[in-house]
Amino acid sequence: MAETGQSQARVVPVISELKVPKGTRDWFGADVILRDHIFQTISEVFKRHGGTALDTPVFELREVLTGKYGEDSKLIYDLADQGGELAALRFDLTVPFARWLAMNNVTQIKRYQISKVYRRDQPAIARGRMREFYQCDFDIAGETDPMIPDSEILRIIIEVFKALELDVTIKLNHRKVLDGLFAVAGVPADKIRATSSAVDKLDKMPWVEVKKEMVESKGIPDEVADRIGEYVQQSGPIADMLERLQADSKLTSNDDVKAGLSDLSLLVTYLQAMGVADKISFDLSLARGLDYYTGLIYECVVGPTAATEPNASAPKSKSKSKSKKSDDPSSLVGSIGAGGRYDNLVGVFGKRTIPCVGISFGVDRIFTILKAKREREAGAAPRTRETDVYVMAFGGKGFDGLLAERMSVISALWDAGIRAEFSPKVKPRLPQQFKAAADVPLAVILGQDELAAGKVKIKVLGLESDHPEKEGVMVDRADVAAEVRKRLPKP
Amino acid sequence: MAETGQSQARVVPVISELKVPKGTRDWFGADVILRDHIFQTISEVFKRHGGTALDTPVFELREVLTGKYGEDSKLIYDLADQGGELAALRFDLTVPFARWLAMNNVTQIKRYQISKVYRRDQPAIARGRMREFYQCDFDIAGETDPMIPDSEILRIIIEVFKALELDVTIKLNHRKVLDGLFAVAGVPADKIRATSSAVDKLDKMPWVEVKKEMVESKGIPDEVADRIGEYVQQSGPIADMLERLQADSKLTSNDDVKAGLSDLSLLVTYLQAMGVADKISFDLSLARGLDYYTGLIYECVVGPTAATEPNASAPKSKSKSKSKKSDDPSSLVGSIGAGGRYDNLVGVFGKRTIPCVGISFGVDRIFTILKAKREREAGAAPRTRETDVYVMAFGGKGFDGLLAERMSVISALWDAGIRAEFSPKVKPRLPQQFKAAADVPLAVILGQDELAAGKVKIKVLGLESDHPEKEGVMVDRADVAAEVRKRLPKP
Repeated sequence: MAETGQSQARVVPVISELKVPKGTRDWFGADVILRDHIFQTISEVFKRHGGTALDTPVFELREVLTGKYGEDSKLIYDLADQGGELAALRFDLTVPFARWLAMNNVTQIKRYQISKVYRRDQPAIARGRMREFYQCDFDIAGETDPMIPDSEILRIIIEVFKALELDVTIKLNHRKVLDGLFAVAGVPADKIRATSSAVDKLDKMPWVEVKKEMVESKGIPDEVADRIGEYVQQSGPIADMLERLQADSKLTSNDDVKAGLSDLSLLVTYLQAMGVADKISFDLSLARGLDYYTGLIYECVVGPTAATEPNASAPKSKSKSKSKKSDDPSSLVGSIGAGGRYDNLVGVFGKRTIPCVGISFGVDRIFTILKAKREREAGAAPRTRETDVYVMAFGGKGFDGLLAERMSVISALWDAGIRAEFSPKVKPRLPQQFKAAADVPLAVILGQDELAAGKVKIKVLGLESDHPEKEGVMVDRADVAAEVRKRLPKP
Repeated sequence: MAETGQSQARVVPVISELKVPKGTRDWFGADVILRDHIFQTISEVFKRHGGTALDTPVFELREVLTGKYGEDSKLIYDLADQGGELAALRFDLTVPFARWLAMNNVTQIKRYQISKVYRRDQPAIARGRMREFYQCDFDIAGETDPMIPDSEILRIIIEVFKALELDVTIKLNHRKVLDGLFAVAGVPADKIRATSSAVDKLDKMPWVEVKKEMVESKGIPDEVADRIGEYVQQSGPIADMLERLQADSKLTSNDDVKAGLSDLSLLVTYLQAMGVADKISFDLSLARGLDYYTGLIYECVVGPTAATEPNASAPKSKSKSKSKKSDDPSSLVGSIGAGGRYDNLVGVFGKRTIPCVGISFGVDRIFTILKAKREREAGAAPRTRETDVYVMAFGGKGFDGLLAERMSVISALWDAGIRAEFSPKVKPRLPQQFKAAADVPLAVILGQDELAAGKVKIKVLGLESDHPEKEGVMVDRADVAAEVRKRLPKP
């Protein structure tokens, strides 16, 4: 093109500073391989539970997203008005799912979606908090008998982290129990949501500070705050906690609490039938910010916490929140999965109400933890691509590079579905070729004399010195794919 | 939530008309399964050739995209200025790849990316022309000896369509040959790109109309247009066409043409070594709109065309363009893959020039064709999910639904990685359960007496009446996963 002088004139000159937009990043090579492993592992669990895949557009009409996210609505990314509809990038995958249910009049479905979502937030890269990040959602929509899908979602969460070999704690609470106990403690109805959002900070700050915020900023009387404090510092195995709360007659006099505890009682039965009751901690401080939750809420954090141990049901000490401030990426990233029941959201979009319950995994944060874990465990840098064979050639005086022969041999490997590369040079030097094959397990080596005899050499790279094939093995050119396949590393 | 009255007050009332933004769509169930099959098939070919995955943000800084797409730049989707950087949705995956190369100083790479791109264009849903759609790109960047990566890209294209079992024609041309022949025909230098874009319409309209546009709109003299017409209506097997053009001394006196034909001569040698020379048609009417191409350009269309048949090298008759206007989706969707060499694009972003060559598959269009093909071939509607087993229960008087037992048995299946569902009712009726299992191949059936004896029944649904297991087979409850696995349909 430089020769014709046509395009060169149109291109824009070098731009000031080359970068990606704030809070976004490129994903490359080994990172993508690990992330794909996470996606595949999670979606295999989703499919195991009858999940159907849904893929919605990256942007929605602006009015679909408006008013669904409470305080966080200011973080929605709008598209410019270029003389069309007003649209915005999706903030999560839950509202698009609810929009899809209402739009298509679907009344019963298990659906999953793994897609990017967008938050115009202050990025914190080290903690895995980005403006563009992936979510991995599974939701069950439809009328059912109570708590059956809820218990299946909890079972799915446990299967996912087992498959990912990650030790996590699932903290669980119930919006009705929480709202009811606030009422019992004396919080006026119009201050319940604000009190709730203060309590939600208990995993980041000690109770004295949370109390201060409630009293000073939200105008909750001191003695009301103290009564709340007695409850929300309690957590422990779900069956134990349930028993304790059911014995509290002040609490159970409240209708919301009663309804919530009845749900939890059924839930415990079902979790036991599914063999996962011991994996879940009932944590009265868990509140979750989003407006749309109506029943169970839950959140996953990395590592076993004291909360699932039988003796930890007593109020938490301050030391717990201090111990969270370590440099381990596991503690830095915060929640790696969260969800709950949202029975009214779909009704906002249509005439029909469809109860829903679901879970959203924060895959980028899971990635951060698994990557750190792999780096601790494995010594060598992970491979950026998965090539199995490098086809090379060498020869003495008059060596022409055997390019056509390399192309013909590698084509036979490709035809057999084998992952193979070769040098893009007519006459590559042998050291160059071995360097390019550095992280490739096998080499196929061509030489003029061997080819004349219809042979090529296969060499498994990095064999021990006493291995019978250390120096490679000659095979018929026609058998190259089959002979390579025999020597491929096990996946 | 309705009970507490908290959130209900905040939600926005039912919105006017529930829809997705113009030119976008939801993807669901069987469609996603087919699309994932396409993605996986193509990325397997990419990995076979040493491809490394790259995933760039969905939006780029606006100045990164500016000035790279010629006339199409008006179709770029901007993000609103919400007090941050100016960004826009990516228009293709090539410019982000070039930005990434320059930003990271990468000089040699094979990378692939499968992602959505955005064009604020007039949508044409039936023809698969959307505002949000997927592209699947493979590119080779770096200094190499001439035409080696170019021939590998062509081999990749052929492997992809072979793996997808789609019969396509690859049309190929060379920007230097095309520009040179325009010069030889007498087109002034400043009208070459405009002439080129008129010629590019030859696959949609007959030559007389293309000529009319060149003469009347672009101001090309009548006799110049006629000389162009003689050339651009030629196409045929690449080796034959090359021979014919090399014999045309008027053409070969032009330096651009000479350089292009020298490239093509090498290319033919390499394609022959890789066993794919006969799959490609050299088509002098192919021009491709994008500004950044500098060498080979190519495009894939569905079906074998006359152009690869030996006797079709003569000028095309009008009837050919007419025959394209059928109702077959294959002909409606147009190009399903296109690419070429772009040696100057990376240099626009940095100090260093990095030659590149690549291919972009239009996966949504490939989907449209494969879906139509599947519908013609298969009778039954494709499954929307891939559940293998439905766990059900039945019983007589006093039947309690055996919910805990169903949960326990299905948990054993899930633990074994088997895809299984059950009714979310405490006491489901048997017909309801069989209805829910309609497209599921196996049932596990629980009954009170059988469970008491430690047994469950496995029933393969839809067996012929003389099959020994037609009525199901009783197995030990402890062996249910292993016994189910024996009877799973082959994938």
